[in-house]
Amino acid sequence: MENDDDQGGRQSVQAKKVSMEEEFRNMVVPPWTKQITVRSMVASFLISIIFNFIVCKLNLTTGIVPSLNVTAGLLGFAAVKSYTALLDKLGLLKQPFTRQENTVIQTCVVASSGIAFSSGMGSYLLGMSAQVAAQGDAGNTPINIKRLSIPWMIGYLFIVSFVGLFSIMGMRKIMIIKRKLTYPSGTATAHLINSFHTPQGAKKAKKQVALLFKTFCGSFAWCFFQWFFAASDGCGFASFPTFGLKAYRQRFYFDFSPTYVGVGMISGYLVNISMLVGAVISWGIMWPSIEKKKGVWYGAHLSASSLHGIQGYRVFISIGMILGDGLFHVMKHAIEMAIEMVIEIKRLRAKKESDLEENKVELPSSSLSNIEAGLPSTESELGEDYDEKRRTEYFLKDQIPKWVPYIGYVVLAFVSITVLPFMFHQLKWYHILTAYVIAPVLAFCNAYGCGLTDWSLASNYGKIAILIFSAWVGLDKGGVIAGLASCGVMMSIVSTASDLMQDFKTGYLTLSSPRSMFFSQVFGTAMGCVISPVIFWFFYKAYRVGDPTSSYPAPYSLMYRSIALLGVEGFGSLPKHCLALAVSFFALAIAINIVTFLLEKYETKYEIHRFVPNAMAMAVPFYLGSYFVIDMCLGSLFLFLWRRWKKRQAEDFAPAVASGLICGESLWGVPAAILSLANVKAPICMKFLSSSANDRVDSFLSSSGSR
Amino acid sequence: MENDDDQGGRQSVQAKKVSMEEEFRNMVVPPWTKQITVRSMVASFLISIIFNFIVCKLNLTTGIVPSLNVTAGLLGFAAVKSYTALLDKLGLLKQPFTRQENTVIQTCVVASSGIAFSSGMGSYLLGMSAQVAAQGDAGNTPINIKRLSIPWMIGYLFIVSFVGLFSIMGMRKIMIIKRKLTYPSGTATAHLINSFHTPQGAKKAKKQVALLFKTFCGSFAWCFFQWFFAASDGCGFASFPTFGLKAYRQRFYFDFSPTYVGVGMISGYLVNISMLVGAVISWGIMWPSIEKKKGVWYGAHLSASSLHGIQGYRVFISIGMILGDGLFHVMKHAIEMAIEMVIEIKRLRAKKESDLEENKVELPSSSLSNIEAGLPSTESELGEDYDEKRRTEYFLKDQIPKWVPYIGYVVLAFVSITVLPFMFHQLKWYHILTAYVIAPVLAFCNAYGCGLTDWSLASNYGKIAILIFSAWVGLDKGGVIAGLASCGVMMSIVSTASDLMQDFKTGYLTLSSPRSMFFSQVFGTAMGCVISPVIFWFFYKAYRVGDPTSSYPAPYSLMYRSIALLGVEGFGSLPKHCLALAVSFFALAIAINIVTFLLEKYETKYEIHRFVPNAMAMAVPFYLGSYFVIDMCLGSLFLFLWRRWKKRQAEDFAPAVASGLICGESLWGVPAAILSLANVKAPICMKFLSSSANDRVDSFLSSSGSR
Repeated sequence: MENDDDQGGRQSVQAKKVSMEEEFRNMVVPPWTKQITVRSMVASFLISIIFNFIVCKLNLTTGIVPSLNVTAGLLGFAAVKSYTALLDKLGLLKQPFTRQENTVIQTCVVASSGIAFSSGMGSYLLGMSAQVAAQGDAGNTPINIKRLSIPWMIGYLFIVSFVGLFSIMGMRKIMIIKRKLTYPSGTATAHLINSFHTPQGAKKAKKQVALLFKTFCGSFAWCFFQWFFAASDGCGFASFPTFGLKAYRQRFYFDFSPTYVGVGMISGYLVNISMLVGAVISWGIMWPSIEKKKGVWYGAHLSASSLHGIQGYRVFISIGMILGDGLFHVMKHAIEMAIEMVIEIKRLRAKKESDLEENKVELPSSSLSNIEAGLPSTESELGEDYDEKRRTEYFLKDQIPKWVPYIGYVVLAFVSITVLPFMFHQLKWYHILTAYVIAPVLAFCNAYGCGLTDWSLASNYGKIAILIFSAWVGLDKGGVIAGLASCGVMMSIVSTASDLMQDFKTGYLTLSSPRSMFFSQVFGTAMGCVISPVIFWFFYKAYRVGDPTSSYPAPYSLMYRSIALLGVEGFGSLPKHCLALAVSFFALAIAINIVTFLLEKYETKYEIHRFVPNAMAMAVPFYLGSYFVIDMCLGSLFLFLWRRWKKRQAEDFAPAVASGLICGESLWGVPAAILSLANVKAPICMKFLSSSANDRVDSFLSSSGSR
Repeated sequence: MENDDDQGGRQSVQAKKVSMEEEFRNMVVPPWTKQITVRSMVASFLISIIFNFIVCKLNLTTGIVPSLNVTAGLLGFAAVKSYTALLDKLGLLKQPFTRQENTVIQTCVVASSGIAFSSGMGSYLLGMSAQVAAQGDAGNTPINIKRLSIPWMIGYLFIVSFVGLFSIMGMRKIMIIKRKLTYPSGTATAHLINSFHTPQGAKKAKKQVALLFKTFCGSFAWCFFQWFFAASDGCGFASFPTFGLKAYRQRFYFDFSPTYVGVGMISGYLVNISMLVGAVISWGIMWPSIEKKKGVWYGAHLSASSLHGIQGYRVFISIGMILGDGLFHVMKHAIEMAIEMVIEIKRLRAKKESDLEENKVELPSSSLSNIEAGLPSTESELGEDYDEKRRTEYFLKDQIPKWVPYIGYVVLAFVSITVLPFMFHQLKWYHILTAYVIAPVLAFCNAYGCGLTDWSLASNYGKIAILIFSAWVGLDKGGVIAGLASCGVMMSIVSTASDLMQDFKTGYLTLSSPRSMFFSQVFGTAMGCVISPVIFWFFYKAYRVGDPTSSYPAPYSLMYRSIALLGVEGFGSLPKHCLALAVSFFALAIAINIVTFLLEKYETKYEIHRFVPNAMAMAVPFYLGSYFVIDMCLGSLFLFLWRRWKKRQAEDFAPAVASGLICGESLWGVPAAILSLANVKAPICMKFLSSSANDRVDSFLSSSGSR
């Protein structure tokens, strides 16, 4: 601005930098019916299967599911782009691949893998089964057990999963256009998709996909190789006592799983370190001390997996911590939202007054924060304004009639209220009605909070629902099943609602029609409702899913069931001092959160809050031990070194590497499960024996013949 | 040359490029007494210990010893340079670190680790011991066994190792200045040292040393980690059945040894591939077929390590191949040298005539090949001429009196002839006298051949000596011991002579005095004669050295002894068809060499000779199997990929990485041997069981108590 001559050039550069839509000005946005194509649906279906596999595997091993949006974006783009490129070469391409179509695929895949998470295959549904029920004495009665089978699970999912789509659909304009909520994941996804469709971005995407493919192959090959050495339980790399046998017995070892190395690369340093801290506190200090009280604090005759023994401490202390953390965040969101509402109402009132004065309608408006910050309307806003105009225009183009969400919600809720009591005779119609009355409020809270912080609290609402409904129904009337089933109702609504809003944001930023977003979400949800139970069934038949000593312990199944037990039984059944400990950790979680919150707000110099561990993450290894934490920390370490070596390269390619690692092992899960179903055993057992045991084994083997 | 203006600039650039000495013009060359300093001797001693460890370990595991010159250069430079840099900082530095001093260290270290190789700790000396003798029936008599002990071994080495230094010392001017033999290793070492002492080279050397240190630490840490899992034989990573248990039984597996990965990086692709081919032919095809004839071709009752059984085929077929290869090269060298001599005599005669005509003395002369090629004396020769003048000047400065080599050789030979019969009563004075009469001729042949091809044939001459002397003395009179002891006499002379000539070349190219070269060689040899037996003893006491089933099979000990058995017994004692097979492979080795030779000479278009396997390398895994070959091929693969990725970087840093890998594992050998001596067992056994054996072990363990 010092030099007038210079300004023109700089302006155009700046505008170009700021305005994404400028680059797409000459590209036609297809009508919404052309955004949803057959090829995009086929691609979505195939990628959905992959993602359901991945999510199901993660659910059944540790329950830690990282954000797979970037992977979905890369795979969707790679699939359709290579297909259209092929058609183009053959001269058969009729419709080019647009970013709107790409967004449709993305939405569909995320919706269907969202079902894999919210369908509770690793949590509330599995928690209904007999093998999980057997781990606690209370509630191990026929009325509190439901035998799993594919038909009713698919039916249940269809009934509960679509309601959420209608619950807050009507709020989309307020949230996206008026309040301009950021929805970090949705925004990031949109930027990713936009970048794919610029020439430079496409080139980078190609490299990323190539790298993803390489690490995918590496991960697959490694797991294939591992398989040969795992003839039975306790064999193979998954039982490698990296830090010695003593540490191994306390579950400190590296289990050579590329999946969790990849997850660690995505999860962020703090989460991984928090988990490590949690693991050291629990498996390093607490459990060994409690185990010394065996026979005093709890019966010495109890099996290792009984909730009245050491397992009880593990489960209920981690539940204490998880509930504390969840409660804090629910409360915090509620308070923050109340404050926001007050400000909003004041603003609207002020605006109405000024509108009356100036007699004009301000739409689209610049974002509130910008106006508040008092930024002048400089050249940098020119680009933004253009973007915003285009985006708003397309967002408002294909309207969805106002009555659709209301009618849709009421009809689906009615179906649900009618059918669910037949499925779960433990639930009565008034229970479900209550759930559907509260749900939209929670869905709105969650979608709003998610728009601000990217943090969906769906599972927290679900846990609270378990407590409430199981207590309401009571143990004798099947309160455990009632609690778990209503958890599904609540979680599905709350989680799909926020997912949908994320997708609307992505659609808004990629000029995709809200209608195509809505329908692709519907298709994705339908896919998920079928694929998810089928894939779960595959694992369920091949392995001892839910058994704490197997490779698929599905930790949340026991935890969710235990929350229900808390609801029906109260604290009476807990082993000695377990309540005191659980309450302490409940309080600790809240305290940690308060400290973090205060540090974030008032200590901005050193940003100490970056080093305060995350309570939720700390609680995860309480039950499982730290083998996957070691993997994840290794992923963090690798990422750290990579960043130190080549910052830019690491930022660009680390997600692709992580995705490759995760996908490779998950895909190996298919042949592995088939081999397990066919009872094919690996040829070799890589066994780890103590020196003395080895001597005994050697003499046994030499006396009983050759190896 | 097209443009006169340009020529000046180009000339100086070219001259700079060609003339190394131009860069050192201003540096003073210290007198020879200042080239050998206390600090250089201390550094040499320390590095000698490291290298003796490395070479000893390599000798006792596979007998494959790669060229460690670059490593020695890097370590020597790093040690003294960091010491002098420290002194310089403290203001205490009196004498700067010169390249002559660096050359002295290099010479000393190479001489002492040369002794580790030629001292036969892994071959002829160990072959005299009772445990190796026990593997063959014949010769397992007291007169053909000598108990190893440190005192006589040190004495023996002192007696045989110094003679070689005097044998052809008098020929140095002819070989270095007149004939300008290339001595590739010596030249490469000199270039390395010269480059260290230029600013740019020093910078690169620093990076190389840093990388060496990193891989060193990595290798050490990895071996340390491995140790914990190797509670007993058949445990740990060294027994990892990478390709399955069946392949493992045929010794095809990756044994996770960084040493041989490093050795593979140094050894060159062809050698590694040749060994793989040899392993597949022998362990993949031949041995399994022969083992099927058990009870027909050889007694079914024989132990696995008896030379009359399958082991006999392994040993004698590989001896056949090694002898065939050796004989070919000895003959080839002899013929080539005869031809060279004829040409030389003709040239001298012609020169004498022209000298008489022109009446001038031509010294230093330009190299014969240049004159023959008819190159004009262009600017590129200016630099060369300057270099040559300086180098010749310094090479001739410190003369060694002409009588020294002759008197030295005679005196030392006399001592040897007097003392050795007391040490080995199987040897008579006339045997030793014969050896000392033939040796100088062979030493000259070898030094000359080495100057041309860099290939020392010392061990081939040693093997031939075994055959001759053991046959001469006869089995009853202790022919085995006599053969092995005279092998030592012959090998030491031949190998130290060529080593010395290499060092003279290095000294010539770094302006180091021949006197300082000679004395550092003497010091190095003396160090080696003490260090080598001591370190050997360390391993000998800690492990079952020489046992084919242990980790230190020392393959050449049995092979050398078996050659002696061939000498005393003839072919009568071999198992059925073994002679026919051994002779076939003897012929095959010669045939392969002839084919390679012809292809090298007449097929220059595709250079197919690059793909003909190397007979000597093929024979190595015949006895040992291919576990180390897999390591080495992995090293090759790694190098290949690195070269494809970053050619320049790989060329510069691969030797440093390889050295680090080798040194790291070797250094871990020290604590490992101490732990073994102290009977400390690793805590864990990583065991590999077949699926069925694992089931039996599991039921055994569960019945006999916990793991």
